[in-house]
Amino acid sequence: MRFEVTVLGSNAAIPTAERFTSAQILNVQEQLFLIDCGEGTQLRMGEYQIRRHKIQQIFISHLHGDHIFGLMGLLTSYSLNGRKKALEIYAPEGLSQMIEIQLKHTQSYLTYPLHFHTVDPTQSDIIFENGILTVQSIPLRHRIPAAGFLFREKPLKRNIIAEKIETYQIPYTEINGIKAGADFVTSAGTIIPNAELTTPPPKPRSFAYCSDTIYHEAIIPLIEGVDCLYHETTFTHDELPRAIKTMHTTAHQAAQLAAKAKVGRLIMGHYSSRYVDLSKLLVEARAVFPESYLGLDGKRFEVAFK
Amino acid sequence: MRFEVTVLGSNAAIPTAERFTSAQILNVQEQLFLIDCGEGTQLRMGEYQIRRHKIQQIFISHLHGDHIFGLMGLLTSYSLNGRKKALEIYAPEGLSQMIEIQLKHTQSYLTYPLHFHTVDPTQSDIIFENGILTVQSIPLRHRIPAAGFLFREKPLKRNIIAEKIETYQIPYTEINGIKAGADFVTSAGTIIPNAELTTPPPKPRSFAYCSDTIYHEAIIPLIEGVDCLYHETTFTHDELPRAIKTMHTTAHQAAQLAAKAKVGRLIMGHYSSRYVDLSKLLVEARAVFPESYLGLDGKRFEVAFK
Repeated sequence: MRFEVTVLGSNAAIPTAERFTSAQILNVQEQLFLIDCGEGTQLRMGEYQIRRHKIQQIFISHLHGDHIFGLMGLLTSYSLNGRKKALEIYAPEGLSQMIEIQLKHTQSYLTYPLHFHTVDPTQSDIIFENGILTVQSIPLRHRIPAAGFLFREKPLKRNIIAEKIETYQIPYTEINGIKAGADFVTSAGTIIPNAELTTPPPKPRSFAYCSDTIYHEAIIPLIEGVDCLYHETTFTHDELPRAIKTMHTTAHQAAQLAAKAKVGRLIMGHYSSRYVDLSKLLVEARAVFPESYLGLDGKRFEVAFK
Repeated sequence: MRFEVTVLGSNAAIPTAERFTSAQILNVQEQLFLIDCGEGTQLRMGEYQIRRHKIQQIFISHLHGDHIFGLMGLLTSYSLNGRKKALEIYAPEGLSQMIEIQLKHTQSYLTYPLHFHTVDPTQSDIIFENGILTVQSIPLRHRIPAAGFLFREKPLKRNIIAEKIETYQIPYTEINGIKAGADFVTSAGTIIPNAELTTPPPKPRSFAYCSDTIYHEAIIPLIEGVDCLYHETTFTHDELPRAIKTMHTTAHQAAQLAAKAKVGRLIMGHYSSRYVDLSKLLVEARAVFPESYLGLDGKRFEVAFK
């Protein structure tokens, strides 16, 4: 039961060979979600063996180029590969127009249905839900409308105790019901209570993606206690005036937010190109929040059951 | 006096780590011209140490994504680097609209003037000219309007014979005039004819870029005798029906065109992703035109004086 974040691009603004611009893949129980799509995202997918055809939802935080310039390439490549499955894009207003005018002028015909869903970055809504998770928007504060995304696994099924299946000769067809909480009635009519057959399910896992944004404590109630927080750390704290001016966050601030929100782990990223060596950012974050980790292109972060 | 083509992307349709989509740099006497701009072009520029700030003209053959999806990233990166120099883009109609709507929605402010020049792909015109070269459009035949580009160096200056400078005590201020064909008058009033002071200039060099297009003999008079021809070779000749259907050219056909047009050298490229190993394409082209070479990402082709 995988719950794993793969970083496809970790740089801000301008891509370099080592650090492409923002894009991440969240794998929840083998369903793949793409978050942001900087230039070269489809290249990184090839490199990191992401099964891109499994993606059915793309979440775009905001319309700055370093978060979207890989979209057209990905969308048209899907067509060249004959994709049939619909694709849903969740993004602030304006993206659909940008995509549509490009499809028109490039005379690209998509082989699959493409649906746009407008995210309102001024409020927190459940913007997507399926059998395994919900996605809730997080209002961020940036130079243009921007939203983060909170992915929450739905309650998981109880674990059936293997030896009980044999003890009570439980048929295969009953397993799912018992995992969902049902008792079992033996062929002799005895009721075996569910509590005897199962152990409680693991706690559902969660991941929040917050980029781009100025340090913004108003999001704390939304991200409180998440297992894994990705938060932009564009600058070191000595560049705080620049961070404020450009509406970005320092490593120190992101760590502070992670500590205040009592998250499990902080993934850092969206680094300014001025940092070739990122160790200063890491040291700064860990001084405040020890469970801070550098997000780097190709790095995978697994969220284990607690 | 450099005249050199660098391939930044050699694949058709979908980029791979080894072969990005179409983009080339032509360096003529240290002036850099970008031709097409597939996704990741700015990444390749970094990798191959192209001095991107020297580019003042971009030539776009047609509006298919694999020739333009790197443009927005490049244009906005120039701004992030504080570019001031104007940039000129030569392209078929529609590109300016695509760019402008993206600049609008990404709220990108360019720090430099950006000028669009519409190329009419139905006729051959001189679309650009400066002190060292002319660029002429080449009408191609593809699924959407497409133009190739013929770069021709202007006549070069005569070579002054070094020892004559000493013999006749020619002052520095006279050198340029003599290189341009002037005679020299000594302080005693003797006229030294230019023919005694100089040797003829080398023959101007030329490069033609033809992609994407079906095999189209009508372009032969335009590209006749060029030193270097880049012509797309999307397929091997056993895929001729597919080449005709998709309006591309086979390696065999491109070589045939190179032979008929008596060009100096053929650079191949725009390979279908089906060819991991390109040797079959090369063997096929060389059987018809021995001076055929595989264009590959990072490969440089120098055009020497004859």
